[in-house]
Amino acid sequence: MSDRLAIVVFSGTVDRLLPAAIIASGGVALGMDVELFLTFWGLNAFRKDSVNSNTRFSKDYEDMAPLMMEVMKNKNVPSWFEMLKKAKEIGNVKVHACAMTYDLLDMKKEDLADVVDDVIGVGEFISMAKDAKITLFI
Amino acid sequence: MSDRLAIVVFSGTVDRLLPAAIIASGGVALGMDVELFLTFWGLNAFRKDSVNSNTRFSKDYEDMAPLMMEVMKNKNVPSWFEMLKKAKEIGNVKVHACAMTYDLLDMKKEDLADVVDDVIGVGEFISMAKDAKITLFI
Amino acid sequence: MSDRLAIVVFSGTVDRLLPAAIIASGGVALGMDVELFLTFWGLNAFRKDSVNSNTRFSKDYEDMAPLMMEVMKNKNVPSWFEMLKKAKEIGNVKVHACAMTYDLLDMKKEDLADVVDDVIGVGEFISMAKDAKITLFI
Repeated sequence: MSDRLAIVVFSGTVDRLLPAAIIASGGVALGMDVELFLTFWGLNAFRKDSVNSNTRFSKDYEDMAPLMMEVMKNKNVPSWFEMLKKAKEIGNVKVHACAMTYDLLDMKKEDLADVVDDVIGVGEFISMAKDAKITLFI
Repeated sequence: MSDRLAIVVFSGTVDRLLPAAIIASGGVALGMDVELFLTFWGLNAFRKDSVNSNTRFSKDYEDMAPLMMEVMKNKNVPSWFEMLKKAKEIGNVKVHACAMTYDLLDMKKEDLADVVDDVIGVGEFISMAKDAKITLFI
Repeated sequence: MSDRLAIVVFSGTVDRLLPAAIIASGGVALGMDVELFLTFWGLNAFRKDSVNSNTRFSKDYEDMAPLMMEVMKNKNVPSWFEMLKKAKEIGNVKVHACAMTYDLLDMKKEDLADVVDDVIGVGEFISMAKDAKITLFI
């Protein structure tokens, strides 16, 4: 069995979704199995109609956000969503929607981007994370 | 010995305290021992006089916060504090106050909600977290 | 080999850099090897010209920030940067700059505070974190 990397993706801002995607990419590049658990604002960010148009940045750095967005564009940094799609193509990345948030927001499967694999409860994710080498809350 | 889940609860916003409580609940449901280390804004959120009236949400999502609060109310989602109390009844959840923050804020035992078990230093928490299967900073 | 503690330092606010430094200090006090991976706003916070003048606090708690800064000053709490420098003197703390952020921000070695040891890719950090006892994203 490959080493596992488990991330709770709570945040829905570009600046936090990006490291989530980068760490997932880094994990699969090393042959790890990656399990992402999308919850709260993180799940909301995976709506099909907004994954490609998200410009939300942490308020803590809103003075620096325009510059950061500009350099990312100028240097052709792929978006967090493109990176994650690529990581799924390369290796074993499973993207799980948190059942509680899914119900809370009255979501339907078709509301979510195709990269989302399934809807699971927090218990199921914790069972996976228990055997992970790395666990993060982003 | 049961598997351990260790969380640093740094945040004091409802939207982050909720996943902390949900993950703690999920952990005890699986028979894990849960250790929470309340620090900074997280400890401040456990003041007896505010645990039941906290409406602070992350500024990053303040446009969506009113909707989220409404759906949580309509769907009778228990508060993070109720969830945590329940988790403590069901299983082994220890809630530790960070000694440094406790001193910094000139707190007294009676300022804190009863779910808080003790006041410990960061070293003691790290010793516990070292043997945990899952470690998170929320 | 000593037990390892691995932290992704994503945040650039004083209130989050402080627990990063405190946890690192706690780790070395217990004889752990500490690996910090500075990325995004976290790396930006390690610019030589701002490490000692950072007053950025999370917007989520901006109403409480002035009080917190005052009590920290009155109680002579060392800054996150002073704490980290001290932790490096006491034990084995390695501070790595994220190569992608470093390139994105067109940084040079001399822009960064001396506590930064090197510039590495995310893959290298994940390889280290895989064998860590504690992994956190701050």
